[in-house]
Amino acid sequence: MISDDEEWVGPFLVEPWHLRTSRLDPSDLRATESLFALSNGHIGLRGSLEEGEPNVVPGTDISGYYEERPLPHAESAYGFPQSGQTIVNVTDGKLIRLHVGDSPFDLRYGRVWSHERALDLRAGVLERRTEWTAPNGTSVRVTSRRLVSFAERVLAAIFYEVEALDEGFYAAVQSDLLANDGAARVSRDPRDSAPLDKPLKGELHDSRDLRAVLVHRTARSRLRVAAGMDHLLELPDGAVTTMEADKDLARLTATCKLQPGQRLRVVKLLAYSWSSRRSPAALRDQVDAALAVAKLAGWDELAAQQREYLDRFWERSDVEVEGDPALQQAVRVSMFHVLQAGARTESQAIPAKGLTGPGYDGHAFWDTETFVLPMLTYTAPEAAKGALTWRHETLPIATARASELGLEGAAFPWRTIHGEECSGYWPAGTAAFHVNADIADATARYAAATGDEEFASTLGADLLVYTARLWASLGQFTSETCFRIDGVTGPDEYTAVVDDNVYTNLMAQQNLRAAADACERWPDTAERLDVSEDEVRTWRAAADAVRLPYDELLGVHPQSEDFTQHGEWDFAGTAPEDYPLLLHYPYFQLYRKQVIKQADLVLAMHLRGDAFTPEEKERNFAYYEARTVRDSSLSAAPQAIMAAEVGHLDLAHDYWAEVAFTDILNLHENVDDGMHIAAAASTWAVAVSGFGGMRDHSGRITFAPRLPPRLSRLRFRMMVRDRTLEVDVHRVDDTGDPGETTTAAATYRLLSGDPFETSHHGRPVRFEAGVPVTLPVPPPPSVEKVSQPEGRPPFRRP
Amino acid sequence: MISDDEEWVGPFLVEPWHLRTSRLDPSDLRATESLFALSNGHIGLRGSLEEGEPNVVPGTDISGYYEERPLPHAESAYGFPQSGQTIVNVTDGKLIRLHVGDSPFDLRYGRVWSHERALDLRAGVLERRTEWTAPNGTSVRVTSRRLVSFAERVLAAIFYEVEALDEGFYAAVQSDLLANDGAARVSRDPRDSAPLDKPLKGELHDSRDLRAVLVHRTARSRLRVAAGMDHLLELPDGAVTTMEADKDLARLTATCKLQPGQRLRVVKLLAYSWSSRRSPAALRDQVDAALAVAKLAGWDELAAQQREYLDRFWERSDVEVEGDPALQQAVRVSMFHVLQAGARTESQAIPAKGLTGPGYDGHAFWDTETFVLPMLTYTAPEAAKGALTWRHETLPIATARASELGLEGAAFPWRTIHGEECSGYWPAGTAAFHVNADIADATARYAAATGDEEFASTLGADLLVYTARLWASLGQFTSETCFRIDGVTGPDEYTAVVDDNVYTNLMAQQNLRAAADACERWPDTAERLDVSEDEVRTWRAAADAVRLPYDELLGVHPQSEDFTQHGEWDFAGTAPEDYPLLLHYPYFQLYRKQVIKQADLVLAMHLRGDAFTPEEKERNFAYYEARTVRDSSLSAAPQAIMAAEVGHLDLAHDYWAEVAFTDILNLHENVDDGMHIAAAASTWAVAVSGFGGMRDHSGRITFAPRLPPRLSRLRFRMMVRDRTLEVDVHRVDDTGDPGETTTAAATYRLLSGDPFETSHHGRPVRFEAGVPVTLPVPPPPSVEKVSQPEGRPPFRRP
Repeated sequence: MISDDEEWVGPFLVEPWHLRTSRLDPSDLRATESLFALSNGHIGLRGSLEEGEPNVVPGTDISGYYEERPLPHAESAYGFPQSGQTIVNVTDGKLIRLHVGDSPFDLRYGRVWSHERALDLRAGVLERRTEWTAPNGTSVRVTSRRLVSFAERVLAAIFYEVEALDEGFYAAVQSDLLANDGAARVSRDPRDSAPLDKPLKGELHDSRDLRAVLVHRTARSRLRVAAGMDHLLELPDGAVTTMEADKDLARLTATCKLQPGQRLRVVKLLAYSWSSRRSPAALRDQVDAALAVAKLAGWDELAAQQREYLDRFWERSDVEVEGDPALQQAVRVSMFHVLQAGARTESQAIPAKGLTGPGYDGHAFWDTETFVLPMLTYTAPEAAKGALTWRHETLPIATARASELGLEGAAFPWRTIHGEECSGYWPAGTAAFHVNADIADATARYAAATGDEEFASTLGADLLVYTARLWASLGQFTSETCFRIDGVTGPDEYTAVVDDNVYTNLMAQQNLRAAADACERWPDTAERLDVSEDEVRTWRAAADAVRLPYDELLGVHPQSEDFTQHGEWDFAGTAPEDYPLLLHYPYFQLYRKQVIKQADLVLAMHLRGDAFTPEEKERNFAYYEARTVRDSSLSAAPQAIMAAEVGHLDLAHDYWAEVAFTDILNLHENVDDGMHIAAAASTWAVAVSGFGGMRDHSGRITFAPRLPPRLSRLRFRMMVRDRTLEVDVHRVDDTGDPGETTTAAATYRLLSGDPFETSHHGRPVRFEAGVPVTLPVPPPPSVEKVSQPEGRPPFRRP
Repeated sequence: MISDDEEWVGPFLVEPWHLRTSRLDPSDLRATESLFALSNGHIGLRGSLEEGEPNVVPGTDISGYYEERPLPHAESAYGFPQSGQTIVNVTDGKLIRLHVGDSPFDLRYGRVWSHERALDLRAGVLERRTEWTAPNGTSVRVTSRRLVSFAERVLAAIFYEVEALDEGFYAAVQSDLLANDGAARVSRDPRDSAPLDKPLKGELHDSRDLRAVLVHRTARSRLRVAAGMDHLLELPDGAVTTMEADKDLARLTATCKLQPGQRLRVVKLLAYSWSSRRSPAALRDQVDAALAVAKLAGWDELAAQQREYLDRFWERSDVEVEGDPALQQAVRVSMFHVLQAGARTESQAIPAKGLTGPGYDGHAFWDTETFVLPMLTYTAPEAAKGALTWRHETLPIATARASELGLEGAAFPWRTIHGEECSGYWPAGTAAFHVNADIADATARYAAATGDEEFASTLGADLLVYTARLWASLGQFTSETCFRIDGVTGPDEYTAVVDDNVYTNLMAQQNLRAAADACERWPDTAERLDVSEDEVRTWRAAADAVRLPYDELLGVHPQSEDFTQHGEWDFAGTAPEDYPLLLHYPYFQLYRKQVIKQADLVLAMHLRGDAFTPEEKERNFAYYEARTVRDSSLSAAPQAIMAAEVGHLDLAHDYWAEVAFTDILNLHENVDDGMHIAAAASTWAVAVSGFGGMRDHSGRITFAPRLPPRLSRLRFRMMVRDRTLEVDVHRVDDTGDPGETTTAAATYRLLSGDPFETSHHGRPVRFEAGVPVTLPVPPPPSVEKVSQPEGRPPFRRP
């Protein structure tokens, strides 16, 4: 049990390997439903209570399962998507309702003596333990454990136990499959979802013994989903069970008399499956088969597989933070959620919220490639491959879209579930063509980091070539030495439809070169894709000539052409409640001012750090730091990474915390819509690329670790081409090395695999398995203090 | 009757004072319903046949009467309008159905022997004469005349006569008031209307003798409309009449036996009234009173008043074109429609289509102030005043909108009926802030041209001051000598959300100066509006420092910052059927290329011609000519005017014809949606400002007439401060003046009013009433040939 003298962060107790709460404030439900959500990337169960209520957003989501909805436009125009896609809350199988005599088990009534829930990051299990006295005076202890299996993609399971405490009572347990639950919420926040009312049409229901299956289909997308449950019961003698099934409800009821101290136990096994093509009977059979396997395994075996999967993950990926226990916890919670989002998608998208909530309609964005895949590439490469495979499967849709837009190659959508563009506002959607270069970046990174030649020469090469073709047609040569890309939107959504966005141009440059490299490396692939030598030459010429605006007067790169000529935002006159600005100011005001929603040029300096000098980085960082309001959860991490590189280590630490606590402390006030998976993955990135200084330009991995003053150690592991590498940055006394003083050193350990060549702060080094190498960490460059917009300092914990 | 050897233009016979057709091709209905529409600016009756069918868009519109509708956004954002306004087809009173024995009179059946309809531009009457044999073999002649009274704003009247030809028959005439007729058309063309299904809810119906009234109300805007009819009948003995009235239909039926050669005559009197506040009974009484007056006057008196009104109009406004009879006709048809659109609006908007059709939802745009009011100011100043009074009445809505957008002063809507912003796409709506300077321009023009001091010091000053305040808050001083206006959209809708649009900046400059002038001239007004000397100083400083980008390399003004750096459009690769481009290409492609929908910088060179040198005008004209596709009907006229000024007289003539025949030849293929009133008014402008060279910079009227080679004379009249001036440009032999050869001269006649000082081709001149002055016209400067985008030459008649 939790004692009161522990450290807390928001509603949670600070612990290294658990996210635990004993609070039952209804407002905490907003956070816990998302933070306690379980997923394997295929099935997502929000962290609602077994008894269903109280709740905020009941949620059971299946990756790739969506309904279409018309996208209305007040004024439509050519190329505006007419149909959107929105995630569907499928049949809820996590409901287990308990009746204690004549009282329903509901924590809003009666008296709660203790209530504790914990997400175990090593076990991959959500635990719960409640002691409660019903309004009728009967006391009960309810214990549950829940998992969504990493090992068996279609399975989830709930272990549920009820114990009578002071006196006996008649207990009734109802285990449901419930479809079309939950009323539609309405909101004008464009970041919200567009929920649909009763989207599932019942097609088949079936039950036998303790098992039931419901099959439904959506009306417009015509996707079929089957949800099945089976049960393992341990009930007192005399217990009676009944099973009933109808279109939208299947329910097992177990009733018994529980004596004081006596327990009943239900293990509920859940299986989900969906298809656009298979018949209701085929889907039913599929979940029945999965349930049969699960029943054979039982709870203990499923839980053991779960722990084993996670043990392997942490072994190759863990990030250890000494000196900031709450941050340590937040880093692991974040990484756990990224793993959950990506682990078993298997060529479905990784949505911005994973499967933890309905935010952003369940759409995937560039978040996946730019923020999520870097972590997965180095910690769970199969998951990164799955996400890229999904992109590849949508290539026909993306080439059709490019053609509709009058472009060559592929134009991937700004937001989608199935691959079609679902953005209803093109200046911050279709115009954000950088998503294509972001996909190419992730593709090249995955290929280089894994050495997966088979992927690189097939799917990977396709992605690189089609996106390169897009850039070649999107840009224009105004002279041999000038290749412009006009009228696009960069990462900063408070600036739109501009010329020569530096981020976009640098990422396009890299994209063009990566495609050229791939074609030269695999001539067969080039031939298959009809890539001529001329085309490759054009790509290289365009890459070499890409225009990068520079403001000579200020000595900084304008984020895009003329950006630094624009008016400054009146930060002093902007009240705290006017953030995020997009909800309180019109786009036209945001667009024409030097106010930045999220790192744009600063992100370019991270991902294309090879294109800037250290002096440029320092000046640019200071300039944009003063104008970036971080109204997006994607901003603090790139700022942290560049702050660490430029030399603002304290600031980097603060931003790290801001990223890491995004959801734990609900910093964006919308955690009920689901986790910010990109921010979660960025929490890893700040550790590894920020303080670890890991860079992978052109596939070459290098390190430049630094330790922020408030930490005593940062240790992380990562995978590179089947090697596991550990970097351990730790505080030390003066090394004694004459002429160089340092208070930190980095110990590199190659835990497995072939020798590895890299560099440490620019000095080439070579590591061999079993031979740790310790190198001094140079002191950070001394830099002038930077400032944020008035009223927007980095988040600091109280 | 029309003989076959006459000249035709499209379906119409070329005549100086009539628009006549004898064709009955159903496809011609698209044009004739709009071109034969009658209106006085308050009531609009489309030119459908009395018998109602066949038809395209049945239309009866009342100025300012609209219904609200939700404006859906696929992704909403702060400041997006949530509610739109759309013109409502009110109770149709122009229906008179005839039954010839057992056959309904319907030209799709039986046999048409002759059919002729003509709009008489001097009488203001639409005439019709049809000889027809019914399927049952009975022959009949139907004659009708129709007018919407300029003299009596709420009245319209139809004279309807039926004559039995070869044999007698039983005739039944049904005269209807019919509400909620017409099915909703659906289209994805953003220029179309959003028609509503059965928008009128019946509130009251009443009938007595030959008179009936229906009162309806819209559900959301809650505007009430009353439509009433009364009749004067001349029927053979033994005729029987019955009147019936229900919620959506009132009908007078007159039945009689017509002997061969015998006639029956119905004069149908119509009255309309609407209000947001008055009761159904009050509105009923109002139309009943109007009908009583009309009945007293009778058809002949109403027709006489109509002719008198038009005689006065043509006397002060006529434009005579010698050498191009079809153009002569088109000019007068155009002017007639502009008069109809504006004559009696009396503080309601003048919509882009007038009251001739449902296009653009019945909204008013900047079209009114920039294109329509110049003509009305000099030909029907009271109408111009009415339109500006409407703008003034919407000032509270515009100041609220400015405040919502974070701006000072007033932000008038891009499109509206009642005053609220109804644009569903802000980059081509709200961002087009130039509408505010356009309103100021029209205000200052009206005040200077009429000398209406009372208006100028009250309503006019309000409009100037509130719009000046907008500009002061919209722009920013980046230095004392640089005032930028960023992030706005100029007239060219193929370029949006740009910095320092030259048109916008020059019009804002003029706006700021006009407001400063007004405040200095009327200190009491300044005090009333709380304008300090400091504020006036700021306006003048901003005006003096307004930034005008200039491309030194090309020697032209970029339409907006960086415009000339953008890629060129592939005109050669664009098929004729891909125009208008907005229906076949995404905005993002249009925005980032040098492709121009409509005159933007060229319009600036007309309206702010004082800000450019002749050399700049020539170079700019050539540059933009090659990139302007004229996908808007607002483009050819400014191009014609500047072509005439720069010296391309033949090109100017061609563009004049393109403007003048916009609707007569259905050049934009959407004439069924209604007339292009701005193009119609521009037809006048090309005559007066183009070939007449009339300019009114800073209120000073000047002339620089020229005659295109294909014309022998151009004569026009206009009103200036209660004077009527005639300018007669005509071909002459060599003047004999040594050193100067000319083939044209201009004779100025001041027909009434005080002496008038002006200039002729830069030479100061003074005219007195009764003393014609003839001055030589200098030959046009010799200029290099210009070209249009491939495939987009000016329209030339076959």
